[in-house]
Parts: sequence; C-alpha cells; structure tokens
Amino acid sequence: MNFTDKLHKAIERNTSLVCLGLDPDLELMPPDTDILSFNKSIVDATSDLVCAYKPNLAFYEALGLDGLTALMNTIEHIPEDVPIIGDAKRGDIGNTARLYAKALFETFGFDATTVNPYLGYDAVEPFLSYRDKGVFLLCRTSNPGASDFQSLPCSPSDASGQEPLFSVVARKARQWNQHGNVGLVVGATYPEELAQIRMSCPDMVLLVPGIGAQQGDLALAVRHGLDAKGEKTIFASSRQILYASKDKEFAQAARQAAEQLRTEINSLFNSAEP
Amino acid sequence: MNFTDKLHKAIERNTSLVCLGLDPDLELMPPDTDILSFNKSIVDATSDLVCAYKPNLAFYEALGLDGLTALMNTIEHIPEDVPIIGDAKRGDIGNTARLYAKALFETFGFDATTVNPYLGYDAVEPFLSYRDKGVFLLCRTSNPGASDFQSLPCSPSDASGQEPLFSVVARKARQWNQHGNVGLVVGATYPEELAQIRMSCPDMVLLVPGIGAQQGDLALAVRHGLDAKGEKTIFASSRQILYASKDKEFAQAARQAAEQLRTEINSLFNSAEP
Repeated sequence: MNFTDKLHKAIERNTSLVCLGLDPDLELMPPDTDILSFNKSIVDATSDLVCAYKPNLAFYEALGLDGLTALMNTIEHIPEDVPIIGDAKRGDIGNTARLYAKALFETFGFDATTVNPYLGYDAVEPFLSYRDKGVFLLCRTSNPGASDFQSLPCSPSDASGQEPLFSVVARKARQWNQHGNVGLVVGATYPEELAQIRMSCPDMVLLVPGIGAQQGDLALAVRHGLDAKGEKTIFASSRQILYASKDKEFAQAARQAAEQLRTEINSLFNSAEP
Repeated sequence: MNFTDKLHKAIERNTSLVCLGLDPDLELMPPDTDILSFNKSIVDATSDLVCAYKPNLAFYEALGLDGLTALMNTIEHIPEDVPIIGDAKRGDIGNTARLYAKALFETFGFDATTVNPYLGYDAVEPFLSYRDKGVFLLCRTSNPGASDFQSLPCSPSDASGQEPLFSVVARKARQWNQHGNVGLVVGATYPEELAQIRMSCPDMVLLVPGIGAQQGDLALAVRHGLDAKGEKTIFASSRQILYASKDKEFAQAARQAAEQLRTEINSLFNSAEP
C-alpha cells in the first residue's frame, strides 16, 4: 500500500491527526531506560492513537551505530499499518540523492521522508521516483531562523511580482507532484504562512511541527492548515508526549498526553467546520 | 589543531588543493573488494597528494550499519595530519542541529562538515559553536537543479536592490563567521557565480566540487576561485580519481590521477598569477 493510503487509513482507524515524533533524548527519558525499550514502550502505548510515527535521525546518529541499530529495531517493532516518516531532511545532488533515497526507503524501510529543497529538482526527484513513498519538502520550517532565507521576497521568472521563497518552494512542489506523493513541512509557529500554503496547495498533505514545546498556536494551526475532509494535515508532536512523565509509568503518561492532543485537535477541527 | 590550520598545513606539506571524495560505489569499484579495503588502499596511495578527504555519508548510509562501520574504520585509518570533511549536508532546527553536530564532530570525529543553510541561523549555529571544526555552507551547488532556488533574484531588507539567493547566503555566511570557521560550497560548474562569491568573501575557504565527471571547467574554476595565496580554494574530485582503473592496480592508478590533478591545478594557479 502506498504512503498516502496507509496514512489516510491510519487517520481514519485511529481518528487521529497526531504524528508522534520518536526522538529519544537520554536526558529527558526515565533513568536506566535504553532507547529501544523506551521506544517500544511508547509505541505499544500509542499505536492506536496516532496516524504516523516520525523518528528524527539526528537523535539516533548522535549515538553512533548503537543508536542506528536501535532505530532499525524500533522500525521493526512499529505495527505494519502505522506509517513511519523518517525525518532526515536530506538533500544532495542527483546521484547522491539517489543513495540517500535508497538508504531511507530501502535500508531503513521508511514509508516517507523529509527532504530539503535547497539543491533543486535533481536533488528531490530520486525521492519522488519511489512512487509508493511520501516526500515532505521543507517549505516553511518552525524555527526562528526560518525567516533568514525562507521569507526573502523573490522574483521568480515564471510569476509576476514578488513572493517569499517558501511560496516558490510550495509552487515547485505542486509542479513536481506528478505521482501524488509530495507533501510539505510547514511550522505551526507561522500560522499566516500556513494558511497561504494551504490555499496554494489544497490537496497536499502538510506535516505541521511546532505545536507543544515550540509553542505554535494549535487552534490557529488547525484552522489554517486543515482541508475540508480533515485528512491532509498531520500535527507532529514529540517532547510533549514522550516526556509527559519521567517515572516508571512514563508510557501510560505518554498515552494520556497523546489522547489529549488527539481530542484537542479533533474538537478544534469539528468546531472549525461551518 | 583547528580545521583551518590543519587544512593549510596539509595544503602546504603536499603542495595540493585536491580534496579527494571518498565515495565508494560498488558498481565502479574493482570486483571482490569491500569498501573498507578499497578506501584504505586509496588513502594509502594518496595521502601525500591531497589536502583533505571528503567522504559523502550517502554512500555509506545506503549500505546500512555495515557501510557506517566501514566509514568509521576509514576515518580511523586516515593519517592524523590530513583533515576529513564529512560531506553530510545536514540541516535541522536548533535542538536537532545540535545532535547532528555532535554526531558528525564527536561520534564520527570529522574535522569539518557541509551544512544546508535553508533553515537559517539556528540550524547552523550549533555547528559553528565547535570553533575548531570547519563548517561549509552550501551556497551555489554544482548540480543542474541548483538554479531552481539558488539563483532566484531576492530582495533582502538589508540590501538595496536584488541579488540571487546564493549571494544572500554568502553574505549571511560572512556575518556568521565570528570564529573564522565558515567556508562555502560553490560548484565549478558555475564559474561566474564562483567569481562573484570569491569577490564577496575574499578570505573564506571555498570547497569547489563539480570538476571531472560533472564537467566543470577547471581552468575557469581556478582563475575565479583562487585567492592571492592559493590556499583558500580546494577542489573536490571523486570518481575521476577513485575509479581511474577497475583492475587490481586501482590504487596506483588513483595515485596517478590524483597526482595529475594536483599538477594541473598548481600549473593553472601559477600561470594565473600576475
């Protein structure tokens, strides 16, 4: 089954737009827990409450081969019907991008990944050519520095007037979306931009980080991000759920936090309907 | 010793501006060679002819844990006085960038790395804060798709008039270079842009890929890239040297190819002097 179908089935089955970031941080985890057991407990406690898992590779790479082994074993442990987005933000020239795509989609076996668009089409195409896999292009990221380049007013030759760089990226993403497997990363911390991007890409899946610890406004993000059917915007949360408690009941606490976020998003969505 | 000093010492000791990309490709390597023995033979045959090694992580990640183990063992094998640039092109928001920096500089132990600037300052700063390490920001990459975004005319608020995105990146890189450890990646395939960037960043180390297989014009790249002392532009080459021969004398052939490229660059530099 391709990524988009798998995602929509999980959204429907679990009535959830929560994408849980599996970002194990030794300093925040309960003491004496290794990251594989931590991840397994979290997955066991939440797999009926989320629409996807999203491990960020940095957390594993920082721990070297042990970390990457734990990542592979975590992927193995996640139920087949919950899609996994490898948050890797890779970007390299054609030949090399092909190897990154292979690493993420074949070696790790992710259902989708995040890709940095700065290098242009030939850096993105090798990912897109895996038609069953999802490709989330970084568009407007959730961090403060995002404005350094992403909101620069640009004058692309195929548009009249100026538009910010992130909006050129969104337009290119639409053009590149020949197989229907392109999505965009748009931070909840920039709700106006989120609204603009949703308007220009009504059918694209948006991956929205920045709620919770990063303090994006969830109500605004739901209002501005959601499409009519409520199945094309997923909200990434990590610390808020993973580290709801540091004691030995951490998995149960994570379950409660995931359930609460799910309910909150669903109520906001329902009350946003006309 | 910090990266820049180590690089300059290697340039001087080996009279070389050749940065050898260690990108093992099973299809191009001699048959029945594993990538660690291949890399070791290449390093043994070239370490007195190059100013740096540059493994691109994609080649290793595509092979999973075995590939990454081979990368770690390759790093171990490279002589202490030749700097190693981990070509990883990472880029993520502040907290996560910190983990990537840790992975590359501490876990792998690279002397320098390449970083994607799209996410802005807080994605770059965690790398810069390792003052002894080098940080090469992608500025104008060597691939055809580079123009999709990098040459868009932009109107930054702190400049009068328009300038292409890559040139805004170069300017920001100068501002961010508080510890003198920032360099830029500029493809030899865009010699005019290389000249422009060298003019705007006269003292910055430029890492120039795109000669050889990618067909950038070496003579133009040397003329436009070099600073007066000839120690601030290094030319990355990979396939042209690594795969000079596929038979059992491949290391000797690689040595010859590296020596030839070194001589070519040095002659071009000497004849470019006034």
